[in-house]
Amino acid sequence: MNAEIIAVGSELLTPQRIDTNSLFITEELNALGVEVVMKTVVGDDRDRLAALIRATLERVDAVVLTGGLGPTEDDVTRDAVALALGRGQVFSQEVCDRIAARFARLKRQMAENNKRQAMVIEGAAILPNPNGTAPGQWVEAGGRVVMLLPGPPGEMKPLFTQQCVPRLKKLLPPLVIRSRVYRVAGMGESDLDLAIAPVYTKYSNPVTTVLADMGDIQVHLRARCATEEEAGRLLDEAGSEIESVLGDRIYTADGQPLEAVLGRMLQERGARLGVAESCTGGLVAERITSIAGSSAWFLGGFLAYSDEMKSALLGVDPELIRRHGAVSEPVARAMAEGCRERTGAAYGLSVTGFAGPDGGTEAAPVGTVYIGLAGPDGTLALRIFFGGERNRVRRLAAQTALDLMRRKM
Amino acid sequence: MNAEIIAVGSELLTPQRIDTNSLFITEELNALGVEVVMKTVVGDDRDRLAALIRATLERVDAVVLTGGLGPTEDDVTRDAVALALGRGQVFSQEVCDRIAARFARLKRQMAENNKRQAMVIEGAAILPNPNGTAPGQWVEAGGRVVMLLPGPPGEMKPLFTQQCVPRLKKLLPPLVIRSRVYRVAGMGESDLDLAIAPVYTKYSNPVTTVLADMGDIQVHLRARCATEEEAGRLLDEAGSEIESVLGDRIYTADGQPLEAVLGRMLQERGARLGVAESCTGGLVAERITSIAGSSAWFLGGFLAYSDEMKSALLGVDPELIRRHGAVSEPVARAMAEGCRERTGAAYGLSVTGFAGPDGGTEAAPVGTVYIGLAGPDGTLALRIFFGGERNRVRRLAAQTALDLMRRKM
Repeated sequence: MNAEIIAVGSELLTPQRIDTNSLFITEELNALGVEVVMKTVVGDDRDRLAALIRATLERVDAVVLTGGLGPTEDDVTRDAVALALGRGQVFSQEVCDRIAARFARLKRQMAENNKRQAMVIEGAAILPNPNGTAPGQWVEAGGRVVMLLPGPPGEMKPLFTQQCVPRLKKLLPPLVIRSRVYRVAGMGESDLDLAIAPVYTKYSNPVTTVLADMGDIQVHLRARCATEEEAGRLLDEAGSEIESVLGDRIYTADGQPLEAVLGRMLQERGARLGVAESCTGGLVAERITSIAGSSAWFLGGFLAYSDEMKSALLGVDPELIRRHGAVSEPVARAMAEGCRERTGAAYGLSVTGFAGPDGGTEAAPVGTVYIGLAGPDGTLALRIFFGGERNRVRRLAAQTALDLMRRKM
Repeated sequence: MNAEIIAVGSELLTPQRIDTNSLFITEELNALGVEVVMKTVVGDDRDRLAALIRATLERVDAVVLTGGLGPTEDDVTRDAVALALGRGQVFSQEVCDRIAARFARLKRQMAENNKRQAMVIEGAAILPNPNGTAPGQWVEAGGRVVMLLPGPPGEMKPLFTQQCVPRLKKLLPPLVIRSRVYRVAGMGESDLDLAIAPVYTKYSNPVTTVLADMGDIQVHLRARCATEEEAGRLLDEAGSEIESVLGDRIYTADGQPLEAVLGRMLQERGARLGVAESCTGGLVAERITSIAGSSAWFLGGFLAYSDEMKSALLGVDPELIRRHGAVSEPVARAMAEGCRERTGAAYGLSVTGFAGPDGGTEAAPVGTVYIGLAGPDGTLALRIFFGGERNRVRRLAAQTALDLMRRKM
């Protein structure tokens, strides 16, 4: 089975808005073994939409429409599908009562035009929507399926999962999908691809997808099989090869972000962390504290953005800064040590660098970052250089600091 | 003139990737007065794409295609357009030489298949691409225009702006577009809409668009006129009404982010800022230091994530925390004052709260945040409550802290 997704709404054709519902729907459809071959965004124009639906039904087995089910004249999806299929619509007292009950529960007046939402395409199954007024509809016609879903993700997602997926499963051969997500730090995307391509090109099942974000790469393996055992076996087979190629560059096989992995490691050894950030200006701590419960292993720390703060807050000797510069190995070490001492944490992690666009010296041009790590076994420092603009340097510096901690603590 | 945008690439049909090129192209087209009526994403399938292009040319005046111009067999855009228009392709020695020169400059070997990129659709104008190997193409056919552009945004954007926009302008009536972007803090989207709807519904020119992000709302006014003076007059007219309705909730009329506005204000009075963050864990500082040059007005500060750090780093009396709790007005004030004293900054800004999901007390349930501001004129504190999950509470707390500083310093 293959499918197309149509997002309806003129606001989705502005420079400010984008259809993201289709990502969720694609993921759910792929998990059923259904391929998405085209996605379209169209405005609130009944005739244009009807023509599009007609064309779509000539190409694919299933069409998923999101949006345009509201109560106003602008909401044309239901009418367009009825027009495209040459079917009428009938008023459903049951749907109308359900909408009225929802308004009563919210102590709001039901408007006259909400009754439009109780119109059902002839032969369609109603998909009740517990999170909004517009119900979905499931229409089968000539061996094809058309699904009408509300646009708000909070309504669309549960409706698709709970109502459409079970109906689709009945039409599809049984299939088990299992996936594994490795996350990798400290490698560029092309280097990683070069390293693992010999592995993943050998396997058509599982399918491998590489997704790179700044300094953080996800390697998704997805196996589709008749049984769970088979899927697990295939994942283990390809996965173990990828693990042996990437080694400790892989920081997790369960998809967790780096800061969560770090937290687990610290909790296991009953140790806590303090940070001292200069050029990253709070990015490292912000990532750490985005994890609920991080107070169990994160104490806090210092934003030593200026030279004077490095001395005042962390006790870095001003002479050291004068002699080596604030972006230098001795200062990174002194920051990490001062942080460890003053917070009383087992580990002190520091970052100092030139993020640009201004600043930098001959010895440490813009893009140069030093990371310091002070712990029970002593202190170490890493010098690293990142190309690109300010934001990129800052994000890569934060990622590298967290990863250094993971590998060296 | 109306247009459709087609993004070509099978990777754009996966659950992980989304076409964002179309947002940029839509903005550029709208600025020319061209409406985008449909957007499609299609995989690397020549025949499917050719059929789509044919259908598109029956509906609209202009089609913009992005992606699928690479050197491999998977790259089918050029072939599909030629097929749809019933035209041949010719080898361009000029394009080939340009590609070869690019490879030579990068000291890399030009592959045989890169020669495919030197094929030009009959009658097409070549759009040289200084940032990549694939040139764009501009094809006019039967009063329609088809634009072929490379997929990488860094190649597509300059090519569209420098090559397509001037060509489109020649086909379009003259039009001046001027816009103004107000940014507003401290209001919900629906309250803001309620307040300004009476103004913006009066005007069809300028058009008003409201864009809400967490605690930060942008009000875009866009005037389309024959002359610049006319556009300026219309913007002033509607703009001054919006300004009088929203008052000091507007923090800028030039689109700058809040942290940049704050920086300008501090620099004007020659004052510097220090921060003491608990529940926001670095978010406030991270936003401040995202602004290049912020070291002129930002000193640094403290990540006082645990109670003990509030005392150790900021000198907050442990007795005060014991008596009132860490999330309380006295502690927020003490944190701001401690921060001001220990950094020597003119202003100390503090945030302490329960971001959840755990924590909270009867007096201060999850979602409660106190913001403290200590300055030359004394100290003040604000209690505020945010619903929603951890990340939302943290982001709204950071936004509110920056906005309190703007309004009260």
